[in-house]
Amino acid sequence: MSLLRDVSPRLWSIRSSEQVALAKRAAQITTELQQGVKKPYKNVIDVSWGDPHRGGLKPLTFVRQVVATCLYPSLLNSEALPVDVQQRAKSLLGQCDGGSVGSYTTTRGIPKIVQSVSEFISQRDGGVQSSPENIFITSGSQRSLMMVLKLFVQSEGFTQTGVLTPVPSYPYFNMALSALGGTMVPYHLCEEQGWKLKVEELRRALHVARGHCNPMALYVINPGNPTGHVQSRKSIEDVIRFAAEEKLFLLADEVYQDSVHDPSCEFVSYKKVLFEMGPPYSNSVELASLNSISKGYFGESGFRGGYVEFVNLDPTVVGYVYTWFSLDTCSAVLGQITLDIMAHPPEAGDPSYPTFSEEIRSIKDTLASNVHRVQDVLGDLPGISCQPIKGGMFAFPQLHLPPCVVQQAKEAGMKPDVLYSSLLLEETGLSVGAGCEHGQREGTHHIRLCIATPEDNMEDVLNRLSTFHLRFMSRLS
Amino acid sequence: MSLLRDVSPRLWSIRSSEQVALAKRAAQITTELQQGVKKPYKNVIDVSWGDPHRGGLKPLTFVRQVVATCLYPSLLNSEALPVDVQQRAKSLLGQCDGGSVGSYTTTRGIPKIVQSVSEFISQRDGGVQSSPENIFITSGSQRSLMMVLKLFVQSEGFTQTGVLTPVPSYPYFNMALSALGGTMVPYHLCEEQGWKLKVEELRRALHVARGHCNPMALYVINPGNPTGHVQSRKSIEDVIRFAAEEKLFLLADEVYQDSVHDPSCEFVSYKKVLFEMGPPYSNSVELASLNSISKGYFGESGFRGGYVEFVNLDPTVVGYVYTWFSLDTCSAVLGQITLDIMAHPPEAGDPSYPTFSEEIRSIKDTLASNVHRVQDVLGDLPGISCQPIKGGMFAFPQLHLPPCVVQQAKEAGMKPDVLYSSLLLEETGLSVGAGCEHGQREGTHHIRLCIATPEDNMEDVLNRLSTFHLRFMSRLS
Repeated sequence: MSLLRDVSPRLWSIRSSEQVALAKRAAQITTELQQGVKKPYKNVIDVSWGDPHRGGLKPLTFVRQVVATCLYPSLLNSEALPVDVQQRAKSLLGQCDGGSVGSYTTTRGIPKIVQSVSEFISQRDGGVQSSPENIFITSGSQRSLMMVLKLFVQSEGFTQTGVLTPVPSYPYFNMALSALGGTMVPYHLCEEQGWKLKVEELRRALHVARGHCNPMALYVINPGNPTGHVQSRKSIEDVIRFAAEEKLFLLADEVYQDSVHDPSCEFVSYKKVLFEMGPPYSNSVELASLNSISKGYFGESGFRGGYVEFVNLDPTVVGYVYTWFSLDTCSAVLGQITLDIMAHPPEAGDPSYPTFSEEIRSIKDTLASNVHRVQDVLGDLPGISCQPIKGGMFAFPQLHLPPCVVQQAKEAGMKPDVLYSSLLLEETGLSVGAGCEHGQREGTHHIRLCIATPEDNMEDVLNRLSTFHLRFMSRLS
Repeated sequence: MSLLRDVSPRLWSIRSSEQVALAKRAAQITTELQQGVKKPYKNVIDVSWGDPHRGGLKPLTFVRQVVATCLYPSLLNSEALPVDVQQRAKSLLGQCDGGSVGSYTTTRGIPKIVQSVSEFISQRDGGVQSSPENIFITSGSQRSLMMVLKLFVQSEGFTQTGVLTPVPSYPYFNMALSALGGTMVPYHLCEEQGWKLKVEELRRALHVARGHCNPMALYVINPGNPTGHVQSRKSIEDVIRFAAEEKLFLLADEVYQDSVHDPSCEFVSYKKVLFEMGPPYSNSVELASLNSISKGYFGESGFRGGYVEFVNLDPTVVGYVYTWFSLDTCSAVLGQITLDIMAHPPEAGDPSYPTFSEEIRSIKDTLASNVHRVQDVLGDLPGISCQPIKGGMFAFPQLHLPPCVVQQAKEAGMKPDVLYSSLLLEETGLSVGAGCEHGQREGTHHIRLCIATPEDNMEDVLNRLSTFHLRFMSRLS
């Protein structure tokens, strides 16, 4: 048989990302440089991913010490490790079957860690109750999203499930949704107003969608990826009211919750706002909220850990979720352990606290400084505009490309921002994300840069980008 | 909205396992014992899982030392760690982006580790070529199975995909298949002949299936779970010939490949046999072969690591697999690192070799001794028969239950082996798996016990089982 003919149509429908081609070329260039091929730069800098450690930020010492000790318990006797590291590791090992992080855990995660996460959420939300029964530890937010979508997405005929999805957005969400046979109902964030989420736009999108699919859910990312906006409490209230009116399931991707850079903004969770709105909202609007150890100060993407909390979900449905989750047995135990640390970090007075808090402060300072530098440098470049980066890990500047570039890209069979990103990579060794991957208003073009990287690296990124951009624009005139 | 009404029918169709109820009760009993409730036993022993560390086997020192060092590179300077641990960790860290195991990797895994796995396969198979392009590192065999099934399983109408599946089998496979909308085409292993896989039975099953679905693949587990059989080369050849004639995709679950206890048997991979059969088989039969770090001597189930190798798959299809896998970004990096160690363990002359080989030998001895004890003890019990355990991690004895027990179970709304397992748990604190979870011939009843546990624990298991069984049978007479 030629299996190709038989490949499930669902699989055919997932398009490979143009970003993959850019990433492959970046890897090729690295190899060429290693082989001694002469280029006007010494290395490739890759800020196309949202991956703090790849970008050069350092892991938190306490995290690594606890996880290493759980792995190799002989370290429990090491005098080189602080006593709170040893205590935490001992306590966590006590929660592992057979005292080993090599054992499977229950499907939703080690019960004590699920409890920790529940306490963390409740504390974050000023005391709003959180119940361990509604929390599932997963192998990260992609898995969480897939799991939540599987709950209600149907692919057949007129009942094809639609999900209101921001533009721009997180591209894996769209891939996951289409892989399941659902369809994206795009709503545009208002770039001119700092990527504001406007309820009238949600209403417009929903109205259009009702003709051809069954819109069941609304996906929001706050703080925004790639947009860097942070929703106000008022904005969240408006979205919740809209979801309640239209009976939409709310899917709140809050993985950047610890990364707010603008001191005039704060992260407020959808759950907190929902509960503070009181009935009928607080006891009826169905919500799934996501968090992860891959982003923010932890940045442990390679550990694969995150969680999803359900709110107002019928307990019978939660039972189905449990059964569904059990197909994966459990998530990686070391990711679970890191979640425990995220939920209960060292506190003032603990031996590890000074180092821990200093490391967090240093990352915060780096991100804040990078945000300023990015906005300063991009603000001075002709043909680029960048909305304020209030939170998250990305800059998403718009490129104002003249018609001749758009035409040139068309002739080359490329999207204009892919063309721009390819030339940027070839000429300077800087790898950025192309805006078309994330979605953007017709006729606009963007690039995405990860700002989670040390200051000197950020300077190098901005230098390469500025030099290229000025040359690129001057070639046009 | 009541989301319950809206839950995807696909989700409804996955039934929760009866094993879950038993596991919950086992956890309850543990809590009761901790609260001081008097029982005729002091603890619960759980041999219902296939989880070596939970069962009390110890992790391999070299694995834990290397992984801990990768996690916490300050250990690179520790004199307490052997030099080959330090070298391996250094080399692996050099393969991680940003030098951190906290970074994402490419979708199929760290290229150097994929290369290691490919070399391991080729060496295992006596030089049969293995190409890294056909290997994907996953978060374990459940993920691998799901990924392979997604390739071709379709759920609609007359084209509903059927997969020939052994009875008894690995229950998660059936769950995954039905979750995707495929249907299981059961073929029975011949218990009387040591759970032999017979081609005439495959033919019968296929013939029956062709009336109502589209059988596209054949799933085999070798060494068997829960059956403990090990296929001979001749048996594998027969299966391959059958798959070729019937144009079936072969899905070989070979996660117990390092666990063969009968010195007269050896593990031979489907791939090796396929290649040694030569054309047209070797260049046409499509095969996916699975392996994992969760089983055998490694037993690192909690790390979540495994791989799948495709053979004779069209490169365009492999491209689709890549795109599909990319929805998960990558598997846990520490699991990947452990795969590297499985692929290239310490060799004679390396500082860690003596300890490593002694630990492996000790686990081998334990398993061999357990196999003998299980067969001796069960062989002496009236009303129980157990086929030889030649490989794998389980015993799967048949309970010859009299009609009155079957009737009693029916009245209680339980399967007879669930009733037996429940009483065994309540009366002795021993938790085993019920045979109905794995599938069994109508009218037969089994239990599953994991034998990957220290000898003294195995004795305790056998004592509890014998005592209970004799009492149970005498109550009936």
